[in-house]
Amino acid sequence: MAEWWAEVITIGNEVVSGRTVNTNASTIARRLTSLGFTVRRITAVRDELDEIASAFRESFSRRAKVIISSGGLGPTYDDKTAEGLAIATGLPLELNGRALQMIAEKYNKIGVPLTEERKKMAYMPKGADPIPNEVGIAPAIYLVFNGVEILATPGVPREMEDVLERFVRSYMRTRPDVKYLEESFVVAGVMESAFAPYVKEAVKRFDLYVKTHPKGLEVSNPLLEVQVAGSSRDEEELKRRITECVEFLKRKALELGGVVKG
Amino acid sequence: MAEWWAEVITIGNEVVSGRTVNTNASTIARRLTSLGFTVRRITAVRDELDEIASAFRESFSRRAKVIISSGGLGPTYDDKTAEGLAIATGLPLELNGRALQMIAEKYNKIGVPLTEERKKMAYMPKGADPIPNEVGIAPAIYLVFNGVEILATPGVPREMEDVLERFVRSYMRTRPDVKYLEESFVVAGVMESAFAPYVKEAVKRFDLYVKTHPKGLEVSNPLLEVQVAGSSRDEEELKRRITECVEFLKRKALELGGVVKG
Repeated sequence: MAEWWAEVITIGNEVVSGRTVNTNASTIARRLTSLGFTVRRITAVRDELDEIASAFRESFSRRAKVIISSGGLGPTYDDKTAEGLAIATGLPLELNGRALQMIAEKYNKIGVPLTEERKKMAYMPKGADPIPNEVGIAPAIYLVFNGVEILATPGVPREMEDVLERFVRSYMRTRPDVKYLEESFVVAGVMESAFAPYVKEAVKRFDLYVKTHPKGLEVSNPLLEVQVAGSSRDEEELKRRITECVEFLKRKALELGGVVKG
Repeated sequence: MAEWWAEVITIGNEVVSGRTVNTNASTIARRLTSLGFTVRRITAVRDELDEIASAFRESFSRRAKVIISSGGLGPTYDDKTAEGLAIATGLPLELNGRALQMIAEKYNKIGVPLTEERKKMAYMPKGADPIPNEVGIAPAIYLVFNGVEILATPGVPREMEDVLERFVRSYMRTRPDVKYLEESFVVAGVMESAFAPYVKEAVKRFDLYVKTHPKGLEVSNPLLEVQVAGSSRDEEELKRRITECVEFLKRKALELGGVVKG
């Protein structure tokens, strides 16, 4: 099965310095996963042109089909995503007429002039499509480059989410022909290291992704969340396979003296 | 001023798929920032050998002085950080005697045998130093490679934090000869786009890092957190410069009709 690779890029010193927890990356990655993509990598870079351009270029080289970024679209001097994307793609950065209109309308409504800083948000790589941002001002940048769909969203979480959903519903063309499903359950009283050989066996036997997430303490109070997930073109077959795998693992957990919850 | 670059690598499908928010990366990055490092990049990759090895190699090529990873040190088949690090450095993976002893002691205490899955946590690249993990089982891997300090911590947050602090206190050799300081305040009633030219001016004038974090809505209810930060060898001079910059920005915010808080 060909992988439907996707990547997430987060732009902002506040994320890279650890000041802000990168919830945007998780939200975007979760949405991409739910659509059947395999998110290959999440990269967070600083507000610097070289760094932004490199991050996009590296994602291109890893053959991502969809790349979604967040951050760096605002009016300040350190908002450099549009320019970084222009460098990465080799496309000229230009004033996008429709983007300018979207921005002008918002400021007009409140009688505020369109300064250079505000106009800045309308500059996009040539050929980009601005996607309206209903929560804030800066439109998102949608660009198809060498068959790769690129969406650059603002960094403010509510704005990012607004734009992301509009993108998924109305713009996005790449749709994996697979369905992604997952199921989880919790086992108390079995150490991760004791369960490990059965996880390995289950992965081989059912060709699924199985991961144990330790929630308690390995030795004194072991508690494991067991996640079983997979993608397939055949949803019914996938469902059956996941159910069988979960049953197998629950049985092994009970044999090891564990208590199965959920 | 030479930059004290550091990088953070997170290993785990649960992070890349968006299932888990990457709080580990923020915790590590914040700690590195507090020590005077500039975190250049945070990379999250899947539990795959090639991906892990690439992530480390790419950090080497960006001249990071310190690289801290989290995840992939456990007993299961998909815990591959030690092997990925061995590939990235070209060092053989071998059973580390001291790591094995640390692990054996923990399991002995509760009368549980040392299975292959449990022994797996003692494999490290040749020359690595195991750092004890007081919260869990898997020791961290500390390796100095071509002058770069590498720390691989477990993915369970409490274990990562335990090991990270032990590393900073007792192992870490690279210490930036700079002090990092930051100050923040909040401005209500000034749009980020209106404040942008003064931020730009302040950055130039005081040679500091200034960032506005929009917390409200740009147009109807603007609320900005303004962060002023910098590093310097001379702490007193840095303090003065930050104070002057904050005063300058607060004055501009008031002139624009804003209310300054904090």
